[in-house]
Amino acid sequence: MTVKDKQSLSLTRRSLLGGAAALSTASVLKSAGASEANPDNLPPNVPEWTPYLGAGVDANPYGMPSEFESHVVRRNVEWLTASTESSVNFTPLHELDGFVTPNGLCFERHHGGVPEVNPTDYRLMINGLVDRELIFTLDDLRRFPQTNRFYFLECAANGGMEWRGAQLNGCQFTFGMVHNVQYTGVRLSDICREVGVKPNAKWVLAEGSDSAGMNRSIPMEKILDDCMVAYAMNGEALRPEQGYPARLVVPGWEGNMWVKWLRRLEFGDMPYMAREETSKYTDLMKDGKARMFTWVMDAKSVVTSPCPEKALMSKGTQTLKGLAWSGRGKITRVDVSLDGGRNWQISELHGPVLDKSLTRFTLPFNWNGEEMLIQSRAIDETGYVQPTIQQLQAERGLSSVYHNNSIATWMVNKDGSVDNVRLG
Amino acid sequence: MTVKDKQSLSLTRRSLLGGAAALSTASVLKSAGASEANPDNLPPNVPEWTPYLGAGVDANPYGMPSEFESHVVRRNVEWLTASTESSVNFTPLHELDGFVTPNGLCFERHHGGVPEVNPTDYRLMINGLVDRELIFTLDDLRRFPQTNRFYFLECAANGGMEWRGAQLNGCQFTFGMVHNVQYTGVRLSDICREVGVKPNAKWVLAEGSDSAGMNRSIPMEKILDDCMVAYAMNGEALRPEQGYPARLVVPGWEGNMWVKWLRRLEFGDMPYMAREETSKYTDLMKDGKARMFTWVMDAKSVVTSPCPEKALMSKGTQTLKGLAWSGRGKITRVDVSLDGGRNWQISELHGPVLDKSLTRFTLPFNWNGEEMLIQSRAIDETGYVQPTIQQLQAERGLSSVYHNNSIATWMVNKDGSVDNVRLG
Repeated sequence: MTVKDKQSLSLTRRSLLGGAAALSTASVLKSAGASEANPDNLPPNVPEWTPYLGAGVDANPYGMPSEFESHVVRRNVEWLTASTESSVNFTPLHELDGFVTPNGLCFERHHGGVPEVNPTDYRLMINGLVDRELIFTLDDLRRFPQTNRFYFLECAANGGMEWRGAQLNGCQFTFGMVHNVQYTGVRLSDICREVGVKPNAKWVLAEGSDSAGMNRSIPMEKILDDCMVAYAMNGEALRPEQGYPARLVVPGWEGNMWVKWLRRLEFGDMPYMAREETSKYTDLMKDGKARMFTWVMDAKSVVTSPCPEKALMSKGTQTLKGLAWSGRGKITRVDVSLDGGRNWQISELHGPVLDKSLTRFTLPFNWNGEEMLIQSRAIDETGYVQPTIQQLQAERGLSSVYHNNSIATWMVNKDGSVDNVRLG
Repeated sequence: MTVKDKQSLSLTRRSLLGGAAALSTASVLKSAGASEANPDNLPPNVPEWTPYLGAGVDANPYGMPSEFESHVVRRNVEWLTASTESSVNFTPLHELDGFVTPNGLCFERHHGGVPEVNPTDYRLMINGLVDRELIFTLDDLRRFPQTNRFYFLECAANGGMEWRGAQLNGCQFTFGMVHNVQYTGVRLSDICREVGVKPNAKWVLAEGSDSAGMNRSIPMEKILDDCMVAYAMNGEALRPEQGYPARLVVPGWEGNMWVKWLRRLEFGDMPYMAREETSKYTDLMKDGKARMFTWVMDAKSVVTSPCPEKALMSKGTQTLKGLAWSGRGKITRVDVSLDGGRNWQISELHGPVLDKSLTRFTLPFNWNGEEMLIQSRAIDETGYVQPTIQQLQAERGLSSVYHNNSIATWMVNKDGSVDNVRLG
């Protein structure tokens, strides 16, 4: 019996909710979500927005969210960012559904501000160990065969504040440096064929045109496997802070390698030992040595509701939801525990489950008003199981900042509020 | 040999482009896309946006497109819309890639303006032939098991101006009343189980809370098959003009049935013969009778580049791209003709190819500077083949407005400009 079959069966045995107001009842349901409702707007009354002609949409040829959703925004941690120009912000995962991140809510990390690149003047130059050193315009890139793929992008430092304990009491600030969009662009393998890569080319230096001159070394195997130069995300042009008009996409690998405002690709026979792969984006181990070139983002998951920002509003049956992803391929299973890891249930994955893409999972659960310790644990198609923080620390010690993909714990209190806690 | 194999082979035989500037050449490529480039910004010069710290993103917690993309917006046809409050606008399909439509660019048709619904006061009432007449809050809907699905939404009148000939010289105005997003919400079948639908309930009247009181009858089979009440699109809350905070989703069926600002579902034993299924959204046939309840949107496709708004800028190899969809299931094949339908080539479909979702197709082609007549023809998993306008008119005559899913023709002129033309 599949998970879906089991759920369907269980649903036939009882009412899904039980808290909805009967239409015949004069009194309105007094749930938390309805506590401030204006009774004049509730059935059987005609709500105040119905009798009058509403606004048109001509004023917004590019549409925006409702004003009632103004709290759903990217946020930064004030004490974490030294300046607005070298900054990072976080996606409000706890407010989102499905697996697409809207472009306006995609977290962003930049090292020298967002350059304003004129697309007419944009050029991508290719040099080094190639037969033909070429310069491509944006129109040239669009003439290449096209690829369209959903990929997650995660900062290597996502969850980096949590190594020594539960620091930030929110889903947005502990997991929000990840987003997931459909990219459109050119396969690097096609660009390689066009320029004629020499046999001794083993590494590519990708360089941005931002004031930080962001650059990283990428091995040829990855370049030829699935890297792309993207010019669109979720159907439209890249957003300025995501590298407009063209960025590198390095599926499943840490976000800083996805060089934005991509200016140059140099083919060489050695890694370039760039600033951002030596002084930063390395992991200090407990023996004092540092791991470097730790590119892959291992399997990870988070429960996005309930979570510290999404308290439980009512007892009874409801839907837990979360996101899982792996830089090594597809997610095959996400387990959920409501008792701090003693017992686990298999959640439902919402398709399409794609390679190196966020995957939405849900699980119906019942809250009887008692404390709960909620965890999720992702498993990918390589068989890798998302570890505990204790397992990671046994390996790496306490000095790491990057690549924290450990299981988080949300503690549900008796009043329905939720806290980020550290177990064990 | 598959289509993909054939493409790969052809690519190995020659350079993909041939128009890119060699790095060693001092003169810059003089292509149309580069004609106004500022030479000071081109390699080997450091472009003007690199030496200085760029802007931060704190000012835009909800991000927006680049100012260089301000032409990528929804547009309306002035003579088509009597007022801004009862209006329709069009998605710029020719500017988009992939198969996700960004929420801000989703076309919109409303009949009485956009009501401003306060989510706290939002209620969905269920009445009629049910065991329990219930009223749900938005929080109630979120407690139900969740479903996440990509679906296209197309207005029945998309292409309606084209029945008597090529009227509107653009892809946006002839095909732009369609969009495609990932919806999140509740299956109607789960709501039916919760309220206990009586055996004699055969139809559902869906009613909106807009000032038009938009309503449509939907047969129970469809309700139980795949309909949903959606509260999110592409991960975030529905946009105001798309029915915030909850709308009906009727996959594959004409857009006006997807009742927005959904207020009420009434279960009955007969269709309700509502205004929008009698006086409108019926098709006047050549014998003077009218078809009604023509719900399904049949298979259709469009070449989005080149197209009247996307002229060819250069000769040589480039990528043709388009979109295909079917209200009856998955797209299985899209054929492309460059000579007005005499010869057809099979295009590449970009996965995931999903049920009742837009599907992106591409085809590499070579333009030698001669005239071309570009067409595309979609085939779905039922074996249905997108028809010509002549085939549709032989069946329906000339009085129809709705359900024009015929093959369009873009004529490429010798100067690279493109026109919407009618053949035969």
